[in-house]
Amino acid sequence: MGLRSALTDMFGIEHPIVLAPMGGVAGGRLAAAVAEGGGLGMIGGGRGNADWLRRECALAASGTEKPWGIGLLSWAINQDILAAAIAWRPAAIMLSFGDPAPFAPSIHDAAIPLVVQVTSMAEARRALDVGADVVVAQGTEAGGHGGGRSTLPFVPAVVDVAGAVPVLAAGGIADGRGLAAALVLGAAGAVIGTRFEATTEALLDADEATAILAAGASDTILGRVADVAADAGWPAVYPARTLRNAFTETWQNREDELGDDDEALSEFRAGVDRADMDYVPVWAGEAVDLITELHGASALVGRISAEALDALDSVPREHH
Amino acid sequence: MGLRSALTDMFGIEHPIVLAPMGGVAGGRLAAAVAEGGGLGMIGGGRGNADWLRRECALAASGTEKPWGIGLLSWAINQDILAAAIAWRPAAIMLSFGDPAPFAPSIHDAAIPLVVQVTSMAEARRALDVGADVVVAQGTEAGGHGGGRSTLPFVPAVVDVAGAVPVLAAGGIADGRGLAAALVLGAAGAVIGTRFEATTEALLDADEATAILAAGASDTILGRVADVAADAGWPAVYPARTLRNAFTETWQNREDELGDDDEALSEFRAGVDRADMDYVPVWAGEAVDLITELHGASALVGRISAEALDALDSVPREHH
Repeated sequence: MGLRSALTDMFGIEHPIVLAPMGGVAGGRLAAAVAEGGGLGMIGGGRGNADWLRRECALAASGTEKPWGIGLLSWAINQDILAAAIAWRPAAIMLSFGDPAPFAPSIHDAAIPLVVQVTSMAEARRALDVGADVVVAQGTEAGGHGGGRSTLPFVPAVVDVAGAVPVLAAGGIADGRGLAAALVLGAAGAVIGTRFEATTEALLDADEATAILAAGASDTILGRVADVAADAGWPAVYPARTLRNAFTETWQNREDELGDDDEALSEFRAGVDRADMDYVPVWAGEAVDLITELHGASALVGRISAEALDALDSVPREHH
Repeated sequence: MGLRSALTDMFGIEHPIVLAPMGGVAGGRLAAAVAEGGGLGMIGGGRGNADWLRRECALAASGTEKPWGIGLLSWAINQDILAAAIAWRPAAIMLSFGDPAPFAPSIHDAAIPLVVQVTSMAEARRALDVGADVVVAQGTEAGGHGGGRSTLPFVPAVVDVAGAVPVLAAGGIADGRGLAAALVLGAAGAVIGTRFEATTEALLDADEATAILAAGASDTILGRVADVAADAGWPAVYPARTLRNAFTETWQNREDELGDDDEALSEFRAGVDRADMDYVPVWAGEAVDLITELHGASALVGRISAEALDALDSVPREHH
């Protein structure tokens, strides 16, 4: 038995699981491992650093012949970066955070499936208007950047407006129970991030992976401290969920002050440079509660899918 | 076919659905209607106003012979109030928000099932320590008061520590898809609030019900404005999700200032007294996106359960 959905049909993959294109963390090796495991691998292209993208796409291409895609940030990219991504002929391009409209036509023209991640109903409608082939409804429990909705009520609301366009659930999903929940909510699959950070293939320092394994959801915090400290240019409407550390505890809700405090900003840069976990931002979602062991990404894909089947089958029914 | 779970077995009910004991909104008529529909009715006893509780419990008792319970606020009640609730011999007592420890022994001694609602893993462990018979894991997308976790990742994390104790999911559930999600996450059922506000039996003014039907999740706001304005004494760790209105838009994130502003406080009281929707707090969760019609509560219970069965059965599988 296997799970089948509009997602598995569209991409010819075995399991309705998509690797979240975590910027700088989901590299070519992780994308290839997820693809080899039967999911849709994604490279976290972020704002599209050309050298990084070239290296990681080459790794993915050499690591698998199965489908993998590229994720990019709508607010940060330009047409040249998009053209470089398209040139790799990825199985999908996912645009997140910001208006996808300027970039949708080139992706459509290249006949590459356009996946648009949304964090509100207004963004969902916008994604459908620009012709998204897949819409990802992302909840605020996700690791990294996101909006203010929670996954469970957000997904069915997006499904209700999406018509025939497949919807994926993102945020808070780390095991088969979460994947099964996504499917019964009407999604065609799940986009999974934090769980794949704690794999042998993720581009993450050992200290960061260890911190994820040790953390619970109450150790995460949603805010703008890391972005302001890194002068990352992120739109304020998309805060990020990270593990709490000494630096976030000091500056949470004081981001404006932080931005003007040169001493604190250089303290942050120095801390990150020496990989001091009191400073290093570790993207992590609330599903860290469910993540206690490091796994290989390929086997993890099949395991989550099998768990989801079990979860669906374990709901008891009786004949009256 | 019907859904069966540890919840339906424990209370001898037909559907794994519990009415959220919404303070002042879930009265005896609504509790009885949910019970008659095959769910577990609950009276929203809040801090335990004696006259209100007496009237509403009498209504429930005369409205159904099926099981119904009483919900109370742990931070606000005392032993006398609890004794009055126990005297009604409810099918369950649900304690929410605050430490259940001072009240658990009397409930155990009365051999009434103790349901404890929790908003964090620490509260979940505390509920298990005091011998909760059922734990409700409530997400921040819920209407009314709550914590900071999102339902989808929170429920399985609580299930993992709860052992044989049944866990219910609360927050963001308004239809069968949400109930099905709760069940595959490992919960024994769902606690549903906002959906039951928009029923003919809820203790809600017509203007408030209309506002819920018209609202989307982006029209809700999580904060402390209504509590501070009403001098309600709520612990600050439990903000409330309400519909936005002119008053919340003015005072959100300025609650301390509001508490000292006598003019604004009397403006609020006058607005509420004349039922002006610019002031009246309407508890509503993110699932308002899914609520567009007024229903009778009894029929709604069976409908949500039937939808959940459909959602579970509609996930396509294939044999390899």
